[in-house]
Amino acid sequence: MNIGIVGLGLIGGSLGLDLRSQPNLHYVWGISRNQTTCDRAVALGAVDVASQNFASIPQIDRTDVVFICTPISAILSAITSVIPHISQTAIITDVGSVKSSISLQGQMLWSRFVGGHPMAGTAFSGIEAAERSLFQQRVCVLTPGIDRAALEMVRSIWESVGATVYESSPEAHDRAVAWISHLPVIVSAGLLLAAQREGNDEISQLAQKLASSGFRDTSRVGGGNPELGRMMAEYNQTALLDHLYSYQQTLQDLITMIEQGQWQEIQTALEVAQHLRPLYVRE
Amino acid sequence: MNIGIVGLGLIGGSLGLDLRSQPNLHYVWGISRNQTTCDRAVALGAVDVASQNFASIPQIDRTDVVFICTPISAILSAITSVIPHISQTAIITDVGSVKSSISLQGQMLWSRFVGGHPMAGTAFSGIEAAERSLFQQRVCVLTPGIDRAALEMVRSIWESVGATVYESSPEAHDRAVAWISHLPVIVSAGLLLAAQREGNDEISQLAQKLASSGFRDTSRVGGGNPELGRMMAEYNQTALLDHLYSYQQTLQDLITMIEQGQWQEIQTALEVAQHLRPLYVRE
Repeated sequence: MNIGIVGLGLIGGSLGLDLRSQPNLHYVWGISRNQTTCDRAVALGAVDVASQNFASIPQIDRTDVVFICTPISAILSAITSVIPHISQTAIITDVGSVKSSISLQGQMLWSRFVGGHPMAGTAFSGIEAAERSLFQQRVCVLTPGIDRAALEMVRSIWESVGATVYESSPEAHDRAVAWISHLPVIVSAGLLLAAQREGNDEISQLAQKLASSGFRDTSRVGGGNPELGRMMAEYNQTALLDHLYSYQQTLQDLITMIEQGQWQEIQTALEVAQHLRPLYVRE
Repeated sequence: MNIGIVGLGLIGGSLGLDLRSQPNLHYVWGISRNQTTCDRAVALGAVDVASQNFASIPQIDRTDVVFICTPISAILSAITSVIPHISQTAIITDVGSVKSSISLQGQMLWSRFVGGHPMAGTAFSGIEAAERSLFQQRVCVLTPGIDRAALEMVRSIWESVGATVYESSPEAHDRAVAWISHLPVIVSAGLLLAAQREGNDEISQLAQKLASSGFRDTSRVGGGNPELGRMMAEYNQTALLDHLYSYQQTLQDLITMIEQGQWQEIQTALEVAQHLRPLYVRE
């Protein structure tokens, strides 16, 4: 197949590495705003050719599928940019972590558009962070639209790199990821920012020395990529706020129990939490 | 040395395993309320002898140091129970995760008492969870009291099993661990309990399928041992509530930014969080 990747960062670069290592040889082209990134993507083997300009890509008119792997804010403009260079039968898909604001508008721009979200991040970003097998045993959500065949094609590519594909409406996707991805970022960042409010330097320094695996894990996503966190909040504002209000209420209930010394109630709440976790986490 | 361990769970059992594997052979005795635990502790090699009764322990009157490794709620009564069986020169220390309510009262019961807190938990508890080298590269806090020599003896034992020892007042310890250990438990449990408030089953089930490393890490300590979480809240109520109020305020600030669409402010806050994390976490 002839496959395009627009945006050669962690996701785009990793997808290219996997596709080019497959036995059924694909021709993979890439686009980046940055010439150095183009050169590195070719050198690392993530793409066969890369350019800053669509017009410079050999055989771009014979493209089968284009993956838009830019930041969320650039997805729709990237779709608009690629359209003049591809044939009517080409499929366009994306990897944005929110879908309500992308999937419908994407289809209005291109009928063979399929919204997608491979859930595979690392602490790092950019082409240098790209790695093989990033999508193995990860989940990818696709939002079905009018073109079933387009969706099945995109599904087969994600499955070929090891992902498990689920289908969902854009709205259900956004509320679900707000629970398991976006809310945790704010909750976790809040922990780091609150600890900074400690007024006593001795206690603050001792806390820093004593912090171990519990603090490390609880603060991990809050200490992650700030641009990504901002994008999540900006593009999934409604669902995130809904969940933050639920979280505030839950926290207030726990605080009231602690204030009133309701230790059995606290233990029961923690037992419920312990039983809930395996629904989400398979370790 | 002649070393006693009262309470043969994860911490007591692991300490016994390490002490008995050292080249300078110690005689290690253990006490558990449960005969099966006593038998298992001997079989696993965590202690030389174990009993439900102090009076049955050979040479208990020649004990150098007793480690009280019971749950927090039983520490003071365990000190009272061991006192009639040991000599005036014996040192008593504990491993409780709060110190204000223990260190001073411990010293009132026994002048050679040293409050201690090795920060080494796992997801598991009980003698079967005991493991060698649990304290390697972990931190142990000791609260200095009137007997400097007693503290140095306890320090040397913790250092011999690989821990880094810090000294602190009981109050500073409790406020510090409330930041890095007790607050994260409540914040993390709140995430699991809030997600359960999702009223739409489709979204709830999708969230469970999509949850990956971010949710796993952020929810880990909240889905941990409920009895331990309850004890932390009960015995460190004041510091935990202070920090929960700071956390609530921090969270409200973040929510206000998201409500008002202050995306640059959210990004700046997340950048601050990103810069704070390495103060606590050495990865």
